[in-house]
Amino acid sequence: MKMGKGVEAAMHCCLVMHWLEGRPVTSAQLAEFFGLPPAYLQKTLRALVADGIAQAARGQSGGFVLARAAGAISLMDVVAAVEGRSPAFRCEEIRSAGRSGSLGARSGQCAVAHAMSRAEMAYRAALAAESIADIAERTGSVVRERTVATLV
Amino acid sequence: MKMGKGVEAAMHCCLVMHWLEGRPVTSAQLAEFFGLPPAYLQKTLRALVADGIAQAARGQSGGFVLARAAGAISLMDVVAAVEGRSPAFRCEEIRSAGRSGSLGARSGQCAVAHAMSRAEMAYRAALAAESIADIAERTGSVVRERTVATLV
Repeated sequence: MKMGKGVEAAMHCCLVMHWLEGRPVTSAQLAEFFGLPPAYLQKTLRALVADGIAQAARGQSGGFVLARAAGAISLMDVVAAVEGRSPAFRCEEIRSAGRSGSLGARSGQCAVAHAMSRAEMAYRAALAAESIADIAERTGSVVRERTVATLV
Repeated sequence: MKMGKGVEAAMHCCLVMHWLEGRPVTSAQLAEFFGLPPAYLQKTLRALVADGIAQAARGQSGGFVLARAAGAISLMDVVAAVEGRSPAFRCEEIRSAGRSGSLGARSGQCAVAHAMSRAEMAYRAALAAESIADIAERTGSVVRERTVATLV
């Protein structure tokens, strides 16, 4: 099971935007700050904007701010914005293919798909219970102060 | 987040081997049964054998049986055999790269990586709590009977 690298970058960008308290930060600044390619970060930020997590700052060129309070942005929101909402396990109804499918005794959801989906719900619930504000709270205040001093 | 299609096939193969109660089934039979390419299923079965979930039946050519009771094979075992054990979210320590890394105030595990890892543990725990025998129990007995009649 794999998750794209964009998720980590998106989480840290949200954390930085939260710390900047409405002062816009450009994708170029964030790219330099995290040592990431600007085009890559631009794409990640656009995904956050598309899902209403970040927004282009008014009257600024290329600057971004969080679109809502960090406490109202869950890690699941960020993962969904960057990775999409499709489940990791996609049931292809193998049981209904080939000779198996002609047995004619299948009904309702497959027990395999059901169990996989339940596990994924547990994963999503754990991510939904955690916000960017929670992450900020567990990150040292020295990091926050030095990040703000570097970017403002 | 994506999971390979092999997982679904592996789960259903385990279910079939469980129902066959030690009577070997070949990858060709399973491939025909589920309408899947034989080479694909052969690879999936080899992964199950490598992780001690299935084994080549003694004295048979190409037949497979479960290597242990279905109640002792969790869905997590099957996922791990087919997909590997790497976490979906891989922390690249973005916080320690670029200018961010030179701030010099980072210590311990990143709060983002920690939260992502906790969620993944919830996912794995849910899959570990569910066995192939549990799935079999929730699948109609008519399906089991017809599957056995078709494959024996």
